[in-house]
Amino acid sequence: MSLATFSDRMASFNDILNAISILQWDSRTMMPPGGVESRSKQIATLTVAAREMLLADETRRATEAARREVEAMDPTAPQRRAVEQAAEAIAFHSRIPAALQKRRAELKTVANAAWIKARATKDFALFRPYLEQVVEVARTYADAIGYSGHPYDALMSIYEPGETVESLGRLFGALRAGLLPILKAVTAVEQPRDDFLRRDFSVDRQHAFALKMAALIGYDLERGRLDNTVHPFEISFTRNDVRITTRFYRNYLPPSLFGALHEAGHGIYEQGVDPAYTRTPLATDMVGYYAVGGVSFGAHESQSRLYENHVGRSRQFWRLHFAELQKTFPEALSDVDAEAFYRAVNRARPGFIRVEADELTYDVHIMLRVEIEKALVDGSLKVKDLPEAWNATIKQELGLDVPDDAQGVLQDIHWSTCQIGTFCNYTIGNVMAAQLMETARQTTPAIAAGLETGDYKPLQAWLGEHIHQHGRRFSRDELLVKATGRALEPGPYIDYLRAKSADVYGISIP
Amino acid sequence: MSLATFSDRMASFNDILNAISILQWDSRTMMPPGGVESRSKQIATLTVAAREMLLADETRRATEAARREVEAMDPTAPQRRAVEQAAEAIAFHSRIPAALQKRRAELKTVANAAWIKARATKDFALFRPYLEQVVEVARTYADAIGYSGHPYDALMSIYEPGETVESLGRLFGALRAGLLPILKAVTAVEQPRDDFLRRDFSVDRQHAFALKMAALIGYDLERGRLDNTVHPFEISFTRNDVRITTRFYRNYLPPSLFGALHEAGHGIYEQGVDPAYTRTPLATDMVGYYAVGGVSFGAHESQSRLYENHVGRSRQFWRLHFAELQKTFPEALSDVDAEAFYRAVNRARPGFIRVEADELTYDVHIMLRVEIEKALVDGSLKVKDLPEAWNATIKQELGLDVPDDAQGVLQDIHWSTCQIGTFCNYTIGNVMAAQLMETARQTTPAIAAGLETGDYKPLQAWLGEHIHQHGRRFSRDELLVKATGRALEPGPYIDYLRAKSADVYGISIP
Repeated sequence: MSLATFSDRMASFNDILNAISILQWDSRTMMPPGGVESRSKQIATLTVAAREMLLADETRRATEAARREVEAMDPTAPQRRAVEQAAEAIAFHSRIPAALQKRRAELKTVANAAWIKARATKDFALFRPYLEQVVEVARTYADAIGYSGHPYDALMSIYEPGETVESLGRLFGALRAGLLPILKAVTAVEQPRDDFLRRDFSVDRQHAFALKMAALIGYDLERGRLDNTVHPFEISFTRNDVRITTRFYRNYLPPSLFGALHEAGHGIYEQGVDPAYTRTPLATDMVGYYAVGGVSFGAHESQSRLYENHVGRSRQFWRLHFAELQKTFPEALSDVDAEAFYRAVNRARPGFIRVEADELTYDVHIMLRVEIEKALVDGSLKVKDLPEAWNATIKQELGLDVPDDAQGVLQDIHWSTCQIGTFCNYTIGNVMAAQLMETARQTTPAIAAGLETGDYKPLQAWLGEHIHQHGRRFSRDELLVKATGRALEPGPYIDYLRAKSADVYGISIP
Repeated sequence: MSLATFSDRMASFNDILNAISILQWDSRTMMPPGGVESRSKQIATLTVAAREMLLADETRRATEAARREVEAMDPTAPQRRAVEQAAEAIAFHSRIPAALQKRRAELKTVANAAWIKARATKDFALFRPYLEQVVEVARTYADAIGYSGHPYDALMSIYEPGETVESLGRLFGALRAGLLPILKAVTAVEQPRDDFLRRDFSVDRQHAFALKMAALIGYDLERGRLDNTVHPFEISFTRNDVRITTRFYRNYLPPSLFGALHEAGHGIYEQGVDPAYTRTPLATDMVGYYAVGGVSFGAHESQSRLYENHVGRSRQFWRLHFAELQKTFPEALSDVDAEAFYRAVNRARPGFIRVEADELTYDVHIMLRVEIEKALVDGSLKVKDLPEAWNATIKQELGLDVPDDAQGVLQDIHWSTCQIGTFCNYTIGNVMAAQLMETARQTTPAIAAGLETGDYKPLQAWLGEHIHQHGRRFSRDELLVKATGRALEPGPYIDYLRAKSADVYGISIP
């Protein structure tokens, strides 16, 4: 009986969070410009309603009663995990003072507005006082959450539970040692041509092709749709309605295509969560107030990067599907072949902008951000010294001189919305994707065979069995240990990058 | 202080209702098929949350305290009206037992599913047991609401406050006496050709043209957008985001065009509500749990019918804009001129289907439904005798033999969703539109002059001043008295139909 009450409350909580997600999707794809202010109020009201529902006495009592009912169950039984996660979330949010929540929410709005202005005018000084407040709020937030090591651990725990400054330090050390020699090797030789990617590509046809490829790799259109947006994202309103977005440039082909494959990877994850977990804590990030079925931001990113890079940027993918692309754009691609296209979309090119980075330089951008966030949070770096520190790292790691702050420290939206502690997820996703692919190929011959022939079902079935179906029942490392026999480790990722770079550039890399 | 607390609660209540509207808009325009079940749960949860917020002790106390603060104000002061309307809504919903609400909500789902099946198979028997329950629930609902005359009065009060069986009886009597001779006169003479309306019209171009015409008459695209749907509707999420929809048939032009003008009329109303009323009871139907700025369903329909028929189906409109339409569809309309187009889109043609009816027969369909609903609710007509009663009226009034129940008693969705008492709004809208247009033309020469030259701003300004800006501050008849000097009356509507019919058919009608 109390388990039923608990489940009802959780289902309603999930419904409200999904409603917020729908309002957000709409605001980023469909909403006319006039709707901005009203929409932010609607989202704020629903967020308060979600919090009130989670922290209501009735929810606490139902959760406590449910806990007594499940404590005899197996420690990984779905019901037991659901109850425990709800109890943890209630404890988590009870530790955050309402005044801090309010200050953080209000700061988001003004800091984001200041960031937009600062970025447009390339003037860090406009953003600096707000960023100082953001850092201060982040530190207070970390204290409220609690931590045993570094305050940054507390912030990361929201997005990537279990990850710490210490564990990340080990990961980044290994990555840097593995990555930088590969980057050095490929930038020393002649680059493949990629001029043809900047020809004229009708947006309608880009949309049709991207949708076709997304469906081909396993994204279910009966429970999804693809729309145009400024910054691509995937968002779900239960596994039954999982939407992806991409962006279209008439004169640059890759973003729409790889954006769609990336978001389809996220979408396939959400669509693959066990239907029994719908409207339960196992499909709800109760700490982040976000109705999501994937277990951590990094685990989610592993699925998007896997489909974008291991599938979508593979030679075999274009051997199979370049003819279709050429048929879609006969004028633009008449003098290009599959091999040239494969090499072009894998070309390494150190640059200033994270979201435009190739596979070899992407993690360099991430490591820079994580080091900076850590130092801001523990006070060893002051906000006023931030641009200098940023630019020095870009020079040192990529050999580039940052021309202005818009292409440097002002490029990402995250800090302006009080998000500190989430950049590591991208690199964790890259590492996890390679680790999963290695095991998948080794243990299940049908997967490699399917990738050769364009049958993506064996891969989806393996990921579904080991990752997707479990929703938030197991932690990221629990999933990895069950799937690959070990927790997160960078070896397979470095091996993958080395082999692929050698292949793309036709060189040998030691 | 208590007025501030009251306003905060009302703003949050409005936010939740707007969120429900967004979820509904999405489900009818964007949602993939798989989302149906989850979406209905999300909407149900938000509806419960809205009800709980309205009936919470804190809301009651804030409303009572606010009432004491406003009682010295002018009886029509916006704040006073807002508080009084909130107090009435709280009293209204407190009279409806939770068990009845629940039964009604559950019945909607199963009755609607049964109706869909019955309609598809043209088998009334499948729907009959559910309709019997719908009628029973409606009667119980009417008893809970309370009434002094006929139980149907209670049901109408939700949609068209103040309207009664008695007042409607007078209106319908006058209408029937005025309308039927006109209908008889025009069906006795030769009909204008309209075959060219069924040629090939590209859907993309229909969309572009409909949107252009909607913007031309005053619908603000900065705060709106036009989408495709099955059953066109307008819906708003505050005056700052007001969306319209229409439907497109490749081989039949009128629905997209007049659907868009109709919904744009609704949209112009919502966009014109005083910004000060945003997120207040004066932009919230607190009885119907619906975030709408227009004061009654009939008043709303007056604006859509006004723009659709008095503007969009006028000879002058096509004298001005037919060239643009012809340019949009040069192949399909090369042998047609403005005059022929005007006559074609005003042709009277008695038929079975309400939503396809012309101006002269539309109200016949409405009167039939209202008479039947009244008789069902007071028990003088049994559900089992319904098809027979329906078909007899269609034969008597329009001279047609209903071929099957899908084209008869099963054609409308309303009853399957427990909506009884709302059909009268359509006819009230027709009557009110003509009454407003008569006064507008008589008192403000710039309006008629603008309609001649294609300047629709004077009309919008007049409607804005007399209707739109007031939101839900005044009742429908208060608005009419202030604008035209008298409450609702059918004279101007009959005069309009007589004159227009004579003009379209080139005959004299006594």
